[in-house]
Formats: sequence, C-alpha cells, structure tokens
Amino acid sequence: MNNTDLQDYSHKRLNILTGEWVLVSPHRAKRPWQGQNEAVNNEVRPSYDESCYLCAGNTRINGEVNPNYEDVFVFTNDFAALQSDSKTFSVNDGLLTAESETGICKVICFSPDHSKSLADMNPKEIEKVVVAWQKEYKELGDNPNINYVQIFENKGAVMGCSNPHPHGQIWSQSTLPNEVLKKNTQQLNYFNKNNSSLLGDYLKQELEKQERIIFENDSFVVLVPFWAVWPFETMIVPKKHQTNILEMDANEAYQYAEAIAVITKAYDKIFNTSFPYSSGIHQAPTNGEDNKHWHWHMSFYPPLLRSATVKKFMVGYEMFGSPQRDITAESAVKMIRELL
Amino acid sequence: MNNTDLQDYSHKRLNILTGEWVLVSPHRAKRPWQGQNEAVNNEVRPSYDESCYLCAGNTRINGEVNPNYEDVFVFTNDFAALQSDSKTFSVNDGLLTAESETGICKVICFSPDHSKSLADMNPKEIEKVVVAWQKEYKELGDNPNINYVQIFENKGAVMGCSNPHPHGQIWSQSTLPNEVLKKNTQQLNYFNKNNSSLLGDYLKQELEKQERIIFENDSFVVLVPFWAVWPFETMIVPKKHQTNILEMDANEAYQYAEAIAVITKAYDKIFNTSFPYSSGIHQAPTNGEDNKHWHWHMSFYPPLLRSATVKKFMVGYEMFGSPQRDITAESAVKMIRELL
Ligand SMILES: O=P(O)(O)O[C@H]1O[C@H](CO)[C@@H](O)[C@H](O)[C@H]1O
Ligand SMILES: O=P(O)(O)O[C@H]1O[C@H](CO)[C@@H](O)[C@H](O)[C@H]1O
Repeated sequence: MNNTDLQDYSHKRLNILTGEWVLVSPHRAKRPWQGQNEAVNNEVRPSYDESCYLCAGNTRINGEVNPNYEDVFVFTNDFAALQSDSKTFSVNDGLLTAESETGICKVICFSPDHSKSLADMNPKEIEKVVVAWQKEYKELGDNPNINYVQIFENKGAVMGCSNPHPHGQIWSQSTLPNEVLKKNTQQLNYFNKNNSSLLGDYLKQELEKQERIIFENDSFVVLVPFWAVWPFETMIVPKKHQTNILEMDANEAYQYAEAIAVITKAYDKIFNTSFPYSSGIHQAPTNGEDNKHWHWHMSFYPPLLRSATVKKFMVGYEMFGSPQRDITAESAVKMIRELL
Repeated sequence: MNNTDLQDYSHKRLNILTGEWVLVSPHRAKRPWQGQNEAVNNEVRPSYDESCYLCAGNTRINGEVNPNYEDVFVFTNDFAALQSDSKTFSVNDGLLTAESETGICKVICFSPDHSKSLADMNPKEIEKVVVAWQKEYKELGDNPNINYVQIFENKGAVMGCSNPHPHGQIWSQSTLPNEVLKKNTQQLNYFNKNNSSLLGDYLKQELEKQERIIFENDSFVVLVPFWAVWPFETMIVPKKHQTNILEMDANEAYQYAEAIAVITKAYDKIFNTSFPYSSGIHQAPTNGEDNKHWHWHMSFYPPLLRSATVKKFMVGYEMFGSPQRDITAESAVKMIRELL
C-alpha cells in the first residue's frame, strides 16, 4: 500500500477487532500547546519503602501482612470492585435494566523491588509474571462463576495508579464486559466466514508490509495497529493462533516476556521518563466454550503525546464522537523503532 | 422500583442509548486514595487578558484579529482536526480499511469576559450561546458535505482545555462518529418497534419515579441517567420529542439556557471549585433524512470524584473492559439536589 494520503489528510481508520473507527488528523500535530502539563516523575525510589502496602513484609490496610516474597506475589484486592459472595439480582423495570455482577479482583506484584517497573526487569524476571498470569487465568477460569478474566496494569500516577510499586491487577467476572463483547463479535463473524483467525490474517498482512512492525522474535510480533488510538499505542500478538495465554509453552512464555521487555524499555526512552500506560490482555472468555475465533493479544495504551509532561486528552469530541489522534500510527512506529 | 440492592451490591446497568453497560461498585466508594491529585484552579482571572487569543480585539496565531464582540463570537478553528477542502480517498487493502473524512471545525466564545464560565452567566446570556448553536447547526447542516454536527465544550485544564476563556467547539463532518452511530441504532430500533421516542419514554418513567431528577422547568428536565458513567454525570432532556435544537422556539431556548445555568452553578458548588467537565449535544444527523427516532439531549461528563483534586480515572479495566463507577447515580443526585 504505502498510501501517502494517510500521512497528509484527515481520515478515519477501522478497528477490525471492535468495529469502531478512529479519526486521524495528521496535519494537526503542529498546533501549539498552552494547556495542562503533567508533573514529571523521575524521582529515584528506594528498593524498599516501609509505607508501601505492596512491599514484602509490610502490613496492608486490612491488617494482613505481605509474605517475604521473592519474585511475584498475588493476593485478592482489599478494595475489590467485584466480590464473589455479592448478592445476585436483576432489575427489569421498563427502561431501567440492571444485572448484579459478581467476580474476583486480584492484585499482582511484579517484583518485591519497590524501585522497579517492567521496563527495568529482564525477560527472565518478567517470565515469572507471565507464568503467574497463566496460573491465575487457569484458576479463576476454572471457577464456574467466572466467565471472563481481565488482566491489566495501570502504570504511572497519570493513569490513576495509586502506588508506584510495580504491580498489575486481574478483574474476573461472570459476564463479558463491553470491549470484550465487541471483539468477541468481530472475531466470531470473521472466523465463521473465513475459517481463520482475524488477528492471524491481519498479522500476515502486517508482516508482509513491514510498515508498522516494531519487533519480532520466533513467537511474537510487537506492532502499532493500523487503527491505533493512543499516540504510542502498541500490541503484542502471538504468531500462532492461540485463543488464550495457557496455550503458550515455556519457551513461548519466555519469548512473550522478551517482547514485553523490549517495548517497555523502548517506551521509557521516548520522552526519557518512566512511561505511563494502561496495558491489558484480551483473550478468550472462560465460559466453557472452545472460543476458536479468539486470538489473544496484549495492548499498551500510553497517554503521553509530545513530551513527558504533555498528554493526549480523550475528552469532548472523543467522548461524544470518536477517538481522535494527531500523529499517525506510521510516524509513531518510526519514532519507537529508533529507540530499540 | 427503589431497589436497594442497587445501592449495596456490584452490578451493571444498561445504557439504553448506546446498548453498552457500566459496572457499578457502590461498596468501593470507601477505599483510601494515595494517587495523583489534580492542581486546584481557583485563580481569579481578569476580565480581559492581553495574551489570550480568544479575548475581543486580540490577534490570533494566524494573524487574524478578533472583533470587539459583545456576547458570542464564532470562528473557524485555526488548528481544525477536520478541513472542508481536504482530499477524499479510501483505502481497502485486505484488513486495512480507511476513509478520508472532511468537515468544518469551529470555536465559539461564550462571552467576551475572560473571567467567566457558563456557571457565572445568567440564562439571558446563555440564551445567546444557545441561539448561536442553533445558527451553526442550521448553517453547517445545510452544507451537503456535512452529515453530522457535534457541539461540545471542554471545561478546565484537567479536560484538556488549553485556554480558560469561556468557549466551546463545534466539529462537523461527513460521516457519523462512533457514539452517534450507537445512539442512532438504539433509537431507531426502539422507534420502529414502539412508534415513540426512546428518550421520551425514559423521561416519563423518570418523572414518575422522581429518584434521579435534579431540576425541571416547563420544557426541560435535568437528571442523572440511570446508566451514568462519570461520578456526577447529568443530562438535559427536552420534554417534547424534538430531534434537534432547531425545533426549540424562543421560549424553549430560554428555558434550555436556564437548565444549563442551574446545573453548571450546582456543579461549581460540589467541591467549591470551577467544576471541570466535557459537555456535548447529541442530536439528529444532518443527512437530509427526517430522523424522527432522534430525541436530542445534552450530557455533562465531569471527571472529579472525591474533591477538587481527586478525579475518577477511566483507565485499565475501563479501557479494556467497561466503564466503572463507585458512587451510584442515586447518591450523586442527592448530593447535587442539596446544592440547588
Ligand atoms: O482543540 P483543543 O481544545 O486544543 O483540544 C482539546 O479538545 C480536543 C477535542 O475534544 C481534543 O482532541 C484534544 O485532545 C483536547 O486537548
Ligand atoms: O484499583 P486502583 O489501582 O486503586 O484504581 C485504578 O484502577 C481502576 C481499574 O482500572 C480504576 O477503576 C480506578 O479509577 C483507578 O484509579
């Protein structure tokens, strides 16, 4: 393709996984900025902080004491948005519709070292996180009341992260949330029609073009999706058609960890700051079906746009219309590739 | 109804206008906060700022001089995300789909007084803004290349607003953005089935219950929708079935202005600060069809949660799963009603 119009003129691109569009305005990257700046957080943190409720050996708000863990530590969220023993009920009152939602929310510490982030960890260390994700997806998914497991990380204060200790979360629940429903439908329609994985076929196309690829090893590709919304959004996709992270063998788990190490390290170099983002794994529901149409993937949504202090705001038009971006996916790829 | 389960247990509520769900976790409002605080902006601004590119008589970046306007002033955005003379093209390359998008983006100054916001203006002054919105919707909509007109305001630095001078924006374009498409579908399905307006029927139900109503006058209701996502989200809905803002007569335009005055003033009292939000009007497309299924409405999405400095972050789970809120719509109504 190499359609230069995409670099010069306003257009919208289709997200094949959700069926929704993103508005791209390449010419707008030049406008001046007089708005809010974020505080830069380049403070050097100690390896242990006695006031941190995630550090090993410390006492949490509910009185529980964290073990002296050596790599990864998982526990049930003390302020869980979803609870397994919550009451079930439903409301069907004219145009008011509600359903109770039960679930289990966990916190996963990536390392006992308070000063680190995934970007500071090597693939061997990150592999332990991947293995913990696999274990949790399996255990939670085996629970008959859990039909979907959302693994994610909020990194950085600007992403609402309330504690800098390296950690992520897992919210698992009885029904499929909005974004997962969209991807379920799009992938199912494609699979029924083509008998192949939507994301797998997309990946083939991207690997041929080499326009949006950031990194690949034997089992994984890191790329900027054609329909990326966030300025430096990226996606890690397994080359094999795998519906969920349990289908990775040990070698693949290591290669996945390597892909995470590569992209998070590159991110920190973009604006010379600990790069904030929300990341998440979208994978097959744990509803007992084979879900052959699913192709799991991990996405990174970083909010920074121009510098460590200027972010992209998803506000007015984005809330009422469609997401909108200024720099194109292809420009972002070029910038990230330079930093590998 | 008065279902007390909704105040005590996790559940999801259906947004009848988009078909999407919001997760509500009432028990979670109690968790402590150690995360990012926003700067409070209670600076008193002068009525005129010589460095402001929106103040009357000042020169904008492109060299144009603002007139000495006395109430409302509208001009084409100097850094428009959409342009009317942009090239049209389309990309249909395997799984890569893109379409050019053309449009017109305008800026609308609500008042020459740099120090004000809508909350400081009286209904008579706000009415002038409403009339300008009507004029723009009409003029832009009459353009055969414009099929949708999005009127919105980003208020406050935390909402990406780059200039505190009271102003909003209008982005108009050739196709319907995501959120509008969803509401179009839901309203059309309901109208075809029931031959009445979805939002009109919902309004009747809410007026009977009186559980989520904040304010009403002869022509408008201000309420917190059952499915509200943002902590203090509200919606202004015309009592009559009107597809767009042109169907208001002069008296209704005044009453709409009154509704805006009431809710914005109440907002400023919640945390004793100039309350940030994005607001927007969703109304019938200007595609030449009668769009009888549309019932126009204005929504306010304010990000603050616990205080002038602690906001609700729509991050990890919200980005990958569904929006999530802690305090219920009904609690928010009670808090806002106290401030009228
Ligand atoms: O046009 P402004 O006010 O400079 O920009 C603001 O509103 C736009 C429309 O919602 C957003 O795309 C920008 O991210 C935001 O900073
Ligand atoms: O659970 P935390 O880290 O305190 O909270 C953070 O992540 C949650 C899940 O994405 C969000 O709902 C919160 O708004 C955010 O502050």
